[in-house]
Amino acid sequence: MRIRNIKNKQTIINNCTYLITEKQTTYFKNNNPIHLEIGMGKGIFILNMALNNPHINFIGVEKFDNVIAKSIKKIGEKAPDNLLLLREDALNLNEYFNKTIDTIYLNFSDPWPKKRQEKRRLTSKIFLDIYDQLFKNEGILIQKTDNVKLFEYSILSLNNYGYKFIDISLDLANTDIPNIKTEYEEKFSKKGYKINYLKAKNK
Amino acid sequence: MRIRNIKNKQTIINNCTYLITEKQTTYFKNNNPIHLEIGMGKGIFILNMALNNPHINFIGVEKFDNVIAKSIKKIGEKAPDNLLLLREDALNLNEYFNKTIDTIYLNFSDPWPKKRQEKRRLTSKIFLDIYDQLFKNEGILIQKTDNVKLFEYSILSLNNYGYKFIDISLDLANTDIPNIKTEYEEKFSKKGYKINYLKAKNK
Repeated sequence: MRIRNIKNKQTIINNCTYLITEKQTTYFKNNNPIHLEIGMGKGIFILNMALNNPHINFIGVEKFDNVIAKSIKKIGEKAPDNLLLLREDALNLNEYFNKTIDTIYLNFSDPWPKKRQEKRRLTSKIFLDIYDQLFKNEGILIQKTDNVKLFEYSILSLNNYGYKFIDISLDLANTDIPNIKTEYEEKFSKKGYKINYLKAKNK
Repeated sequence: MRIRNIKNKQTIINNCTYLITEKQTTYFKNNNPIHLEIGMGKGIFILNMALNNPHINFIGVEKFDNVIAKSIKKIGEKAPDNLLLLREDALNLNEYFNKTIDTIYLNFSDPWPKKRQEKRRLTSKIFLDIYDQLFKNEGILIQKTDNVKLFEYSILSLNNYGYKFIDISLDLANTDIPNIKTEYEEKFSKKGYKINYLKAKNK
């Protein structure tokens, strides 16, 4: 996600009280399940998930300073105790989490459409290997995307890796699957475009 | 597929020279791979497949007298040596074929949309069990459908059964996947509707 440059982004990030700054074995004061969103964008999805599910802990991961500063500005002081953020590349997440994650959300990830960019897609084997290190014994991966090519790729990649699909929809808005919309999804759905959805377990 | 009543359908069927009438261990005079279409409708797909692929044997299966009589009228005397038809319910196919089939095509199968009709869908576990008896050691299943709910169901069912996906498209017309259109597909594509496609191996 590319957004306008945020002034004082380093100050905003440094002053954030709900940002993970050190690698630890535990990040919350309870043993509730931990759900991770990789590529949290402006953070509205993970904030609403946290507000709606107080007995689940949520961590929003975002690679770019600009984007995470924007999300901190949005979330402001409203962050509940069960929400943390992490500014990190998904490739390094196994340095932070070791068999502690229950669910991973991939919302409207960059499709990296060119063949040579395949390894950057968040459902490529490189990332599935990382997720296996993050997940507790069993983990759940939930993807939403409007990008048909990324969705087709994800189905193939997850299936070939050994994931078992729990639910799939080619038109999420016309299902009764519970859904918290991202900012992007909100705009996109209003235009009548369809959202692809899959939920799968890693073994 | 429901079509208008065909006059003299029994005579047409009885006189057909390329209809399988007895259960045999072999149906062709060579050892070329055998591809099966279950629910062949008017038969244009399987006829064109046979004409285009002389080194593969094709068998079109259809349950309804009316439909198979219509297809026999369409195919007429043009049937090549590598094409046979079979009027049979898919539930009984293991009485005809035992580990001899390489590929199964499911084209625009009845979606049986109601939950209680699930077992009638040609990608339900009941049928996947039958296909495992038809397939040689490894078999390929290829499905085309415009029905989104059937396609979602098929992805879940095949994945959970242990199939490995080889290719998936949510818009077959915009791919370079080789494709022989069915009569239904020809009409449907002209209206701009999208065809879902999957190719998977059973192990």
